Amino acid sequence: MLSNVRIERTESPKTKPNPEKLGFGQYFTDHMLLMDYSAEQGWHDPRIVPYAPLTLDPAAMVFHYGQAVFEGLKAYRTAEGGAQLFLPERNAKRLNRSLERMSMPKLEPGVLTEAIQALVGVDQDWIPEAEGTSLYIRPFIIATEAMLGVRASSSYLLAIVMSPVGAYFDGGLKPVDILVEPHDVRAVRGGTGAAKTAANYAGGLKAQAAAKEAGCAQVLWLDALERKYVEEVGSMNVFFRIDGQVYTPVLNGSILEGVTRGAVIELLEDWDVMFTARPLSIQELVQAAANGTLEEAFGTGTAAVISPIGGIRWNGQLYPINGGQVGELSQKLYDTITGIQRGMVRDVYGWTVPAVAEQEELRAGV
Amino acid sequence: MLSNVRIERTESPKTKPNPEKLGFGQYFTDHMLLMDYSAEQGWHDPRIVPYAPLTLDPAAMVFHYGQAVFEGLKAYRTAEGGAQLFLPERNAKRLNRSLERMSMPKLEPGVLTEAIQALVGVDQDWIPEAEGTSLYIRPFIIATEAMLGVRASSSYLLAIVMSPVGAYFDGGLKPVDILVEPHDVRAVRGGTGAAKTAANYAGGLKAQAAAKEAGCAQVLWLDALERKYVEEVGSMNVFFRIDGQVYTPVLNGSILEGVTRGAVIELLEDWDVMFTARPLSIQELVQAAANGTLEEAFGTGTAAVISPIGGIRWNGQLYPINGGQVGELSQKLYDTITGIQRGMVRDVYGWTVPAVAEQEELRAGV
Repeated sequence: MLSNVRIERTESPKTKPNPEKLGFGQYFTDHMLLMDYSAEQGWHDPRIVPYAPLTLDPAAMVFHYGQAVFEGLKAYRTAEGGAQLFLPERNAKRLNRSLERMSMPKLEPGVLTEAIQALVGVDQDWIPEAEGTSLYIRPFIIATEAMLGVRASSSYLLAIVMSPVGAYFDGGLKPVDILVEPHDVRAVRGGTGAAKTAANYAGGLKAQAAAKEAGCAQVLWLDALERKYVEEVGSMNVFFRIDGQVYTPVLNGSILEGVTRGAVIELLEDWDVMFTARPLSIQELVQAAANGTLEEAFGTGTAAVISPIGGIRWNGQLYPINGGQVGELSQKLYDTITGIQRGMVRDVYGWTVPAVAEQEELRAGV
Repeated sequence: MLSNVRIERTESPKTKPNPEKLGFGQYFTDHMLLMDYSAEQGWHDPRIVPYAPLTLDPAAMVFHYGQAVFEGLKAYRTAEGGAQLFLPERNAKRLNRSLERMSMPKLEPGVLTEAIQALVGVDQDWIPEAEGTSLYIRPFIIATEAMLGVRASSSYLLAIVMSPVGAYFDGGLKPVDILVEPHDVRAVRGGTGAAKTAANYAGGLKAQAAAKEAGCAQVLWLDALERKYVEEVGSMNVFFRIDGQVYTPVLNGSILEGVTRGAVIELLEDWDVMFTARPLSIQELVQAAANGTLEEAFGTGTAAVISPIGGIRWNGQLYPINGGQVGELSQKLYDTITGIQRGMVRDVYGWTVPAVAEQEELRAGV
């Protein structure tokens, strides 16, 4: 449970951005939530304060040794004018797994969701309403001790910032081509690939730029050991439908366990779609694309929900998938998940949680 | 070349720490050097200002996606009362290689060394004098754009901070035991292991804690692909003398190219010691330790220069090396390199550079 959150409201609220030009992660709400960790006090002093720069010693360990983890989730405006979160406890659990891998102190169960609800409560008029838009929520934790020895920091800062974001695809799903990266790798067994840590992202930017140059929207990462099995696409999990069966790479220690990935798997099982998580070689996939049995491929993640793949570029050749069209299953998954998120489809799975704390009254002492 | 450096001196100099209790990276000098990068202006506005916290937007990309590289080198007080740097241009070249790998903008040749010299010039009374002490210099570059999309930042900050540091070993070299890490890995071919980036350090803290628990001072990292070949020890390169021949792991894309490693190799070649850089399996090393042909082993790095290894713990067994004593070659390398650094041994290799700019006068307009 989160202890009492101190709230200091801004005296100069910002002008809200044009809801039709939100983009992603460019605008931030009026407030942020901060909480400190020290070895003596543990996590303490949760507070909501006006969005403002962080002040950190130049020797703060986050700048030098990379103890930094984050999460990403969204608050959705529902048809009835409410607001809800999608599976926030799975983000909270993954955050704790990330914290453990990076030798950082974990949060008590419930704290992350309550902190998010408290912050969304203060800035709820920032949740955009148009279809496809949402309020992106970014909790992150960084090492703050000012000391240059290579060891775990003794102090940390949790911050939550929020950004109203636009539709990922304007006017419906759009398949994109992806480039199989032949040289660089995202992560390896025994490394940090299964943690949502800053370390996993900067190393992929070079390959991402190469993909763009090759006319592709994303990198398809192969495993580091054999450079044979697919792992993730960009920073999303990836699924393939071959001959009516759906596959995704099995979690092997170097793949991030996506929240959307989990929801997709639950839907496939509920819908009695044949589904298997197993190693998938790039050879198998391009062969299936070439002989027409690769019926659909798509990435899954919080930003896009479902991102259809129109073709795979490998060894200089483009292997189109489903004629570059959105597959039936991709569309159904997208409609179902976004429908549940927006309260248009009944949430029979119990995936949604109010975005604004029902305990608001409790906190006020009622 | 570095353009004119603006200097703003502190009005409240700090009390200097007790020179006998410096430790490592705990105290910082009165000033720091900052320089900004923007897409429009490139690197600009180098300035020396009082040491103070950095102010960064909570959405600054360094906190989220890990674009952060650094270097570490030292200024040494010489016997004649001067001060010198050790091979700073190699740090500058490695910094540029790191920047390239992490999709960050490079520095012009000469700029890093000149920036360091300018800053040491301002804080030169912070260089400690006692044997084994020095002024540790930490240049680092971080992504500052406030935006949550996963792409390269459009703005960066270069900062250089300096810390007077104590002797790594009190009263001479002390061999330490090291633990072969069986599960976690530091880096992999195609990843970021050859770059000096924050990403490579936090992931190793868990293994480092496990080493400590096993009574070892450091982790001996194995390669990620086969978990068979040694790569680095802690955050140092590693050397072994077997039957009179010296070996170090060959640079394979996942090993950092250490400046001290390079100096050691040059000395070995100059001294006509048989030397080879090649893959070294842990099996070969513990066998050599068991049959007594592993005569010496040591780590190399800026902090310790030479760190002798007294024993290797692998699969629950400790393999002592050289009876836990400092080897002859280890001692000779340590004495030679530290002697050159302190101006006690003639620098026939041209490794040292004045720590305070001779161009100070030029800059002042003389």
